[in-house]
Amino acid sequence: MTKPSSIAPSPLAYVPFVSVDNMMKLVHHVGIERFLRELADYVEADFRRWELFDKTPRVASHSAEGVIELMPTSDGEVYGFKYVNGHPKNTKEGLQTVTAFGLLADVGTGYPVLLSEMTILTALRTAATSAMAARHLAPRGAKTMAMIGNGAQSEFQTLAMKAIIGLEHVRLYDIDPAATAKCAANLRGLGISVTSCASPEEAMEGAEIITTCTADKQNATILTDNMVGAGVHINAIGGDCPGKTELHRDILTRADVFVEYPPQTRIEGEIQQMPEDFEVTELWQVITGARPGRRSESQITLFDSVGFAIEDFSALRYVRDRLEGTALFEQLDMLADPDDPRDLFGMLQRARPEAAA
Amino acid sequence: MTKPSSIAPSPLAYVPFVSVDNMMKLVHHVGIERFLRELADYVEADFRRWELFDKTPRVASHSAEGVIELMPTSDGEVYGFKYVNGHPKNTKEGLQTVTAFGLLADVGTGYPVLLSEMTILTALRTAATSAMAARHLAPRGAKTMAMIGNGAQSEFQTLAMKAIIGLEHVRLYDIDPAATAKCAANLRGLGISVTSCASPEEAMEGAEIITTCTADKQNATILTDNMVGAGVHINAIGGDCPGKTELHRDILTRADVFVEYPPQTRIEGEIQQMPEDFEVTELWQVITGARPGRRSESQITLFDSVGFAIEDFSALRYVRDRLEGTALFEQLDMLADPDDPRDLFGMLQRARPEAAA
Repeated sequence: MTKPSSIAPSPLAYVPFVSVDNMMKLVHHVGIERFLRELADYVEADFRRWELFDKTPRVASHSAEGVIELMPTSDGEVYGFKYVNGHPKNTKEGLQTVTAFGLLADVGTGYPVLLSEMTILTALRTAATSAMAARHLAPRGAKTMAMIGNGAQSEFQTLAMKAIIGLEHVRLYDIDPAATAKCAANLRGLGISVTSCASPEEAMEGAEIITTCTADKQNATILTDNMVGAGVHINAIGGDCPGKTELHRDILTRADVFVEYPPQTRIEGEIQQMPEDFEVTELWQVITGARPGRRSESQITLFDSVGFAIEDFSALRYVRDRLEGTALFEQLDMLADPDDPRDLFGMLQRARPEAAA
Repeated sequence: MTKPSSIAPSPLAYVPFVSVDNMMKLVHHVGIERFLRELADYVEADFRRWELFDKTPRVASHSAEGVIELMPTSDGEVYGFKYVNGHPKNTKEGLQTVTAFGLLADVGTGYPVLLSEMTILTALRTAATSAMAARHLAPRGAKTMAMIGNGAQSEFQTLAMKAIIGLEHVRLYDIDPAATAKCAANLRGLGISVTSCASPEEAMEGAEIITTCTADKQNATILTDNMVGAGVHINAIGGDCPGKTELHRDILTRADVFVEYPPQTRIEGEIQQMPEDFEVTELWQVITGARPGRRSESQITLFDSVGFAIEDFSALRYVRDRLEGTALFEQLDMLADPDDPRDLFGMLQRARPEAAA
């Protein structure tokens, strides 16, 4: 095949890249609630075919300051991984605690087919996954959620619950009233009624769903046993790494606990407080109908969410499909593509400044 | 800190990206031989401090068509990983068998600091590592190399041996004469005398170094025992994954074998043919002086090279340093950077098309 110039890369050599700016444009192009709804459907579809995924534990590189992780997975046709860091002290220097990006590749050729920012996308997929789980576990017709912890994830959680299960009211609480004020201001005009509360107890009044999403890396007790009434669904987001939990263990013994991937949740989730053989149900089995979800009005259900590679995979898959027909990506010249695969050196030599003359 | 626009990312949100085009420009800006020499020094410097690296085995995702691997490492201050695929059948569809890219990140903050193409860079680092090993293991004053296998790596190997140990002659052989012709043409005018040979035996006449770098994925016997004379250094590049070897096992028993990282080489290298406890020397120990390299003129030394994550790390580190003061990179808007880390949602909302008006 003749090319106009021997050093111009072929279309195959380009990898579509979604920047932070384009990700925000894509979200608004689709509409944030529709984005969350469709994303939840992609996540649910991948949970439904859970068994065929290649499930590698995340590959973590720990340091005194934090952790850098690679989270790969594959469905046999598409391979994906996410790079994500967690550095709690970053906030003090005006940096993000967590940044992320991700990649999809074609399993058949090994060629990358999408590179994307994933800081915003992870916030969206975490919320979409929570709401998708609530669709299966929360009391039918739940309208009110207590949102304990009003940080970066709180608005996404609230809006996903509105978009996916029809939530109407959110009751906010944070130990820092400024965080509550920020969250309330951000939710204004989005079609959800917001009540700012002075205590966790006040936030939980009348709530059918309790979402915990606080930031401190410690074994905290955001919820004690006597605060949790019969019949609620607890969506526990913040207990997501070793040494970081939010719930008193007595709640775990009263609740039916649902998890993403037990080997990971036993290390990172709320159930790290419990014995190795503590009984849990895998969420994907509820979705396929293999195991029951909510069985009674008085049952306490608990989604002990830590975030799993398949959710990132679903999110990248959704973004890739949604990008089609838009101009919301750049083409990165990331793959060397000589005319003759054996002639990489010739390609390099033809790129000499003298050779171009 | 006030910013001119609340949605413009801060400089910290940008990740320098080296495209294929810019990598080629950088190589020519530095000069290819100087690039190889300096790169070999970076690799050697990292081998010298081998023990402080975080050495994770590569994380592989296998399929019927090939493999996709992530190769992470860290020196405690900088973290790096390479994405690399291996798909032998790609060539038939006009695609590369191997493509790669890599990333460096700051361990203290977890923020990525460099994203780079690594198809070309891997070819350079593989050759630089071979020549660096030859500097420690080949007969002193070696001037002639037999180059068996004249594919994509062959010119890089030859030029690195010239730049780093002063090689003067190369004797080429490939089962496909077209590959030999391509290699000879590419090496013309680069200050090395080239002899094209009709058999491996002819290629080895007078050679003090034998480099094997063939492509077929099978247990092949490119070299048999009677072909290898006393005193040579064998630089075995092509035996680099399970089921792919190039040397007859009798050669391995006669030679002193030097490897990068034994747990990986025992699976991927020539020594996969040998028992688990087959004696090898780690190259980094030769470099630090802890173990002897070449001890006599009649000794056969063998560098059983499979490529290790630390070499990619060194290469990325070198590129990062070399980029300084050039314009040979783009700035990717890959990291979300809200003014207030807790206000990711507010950043997203301010990016609404209506909000800009």
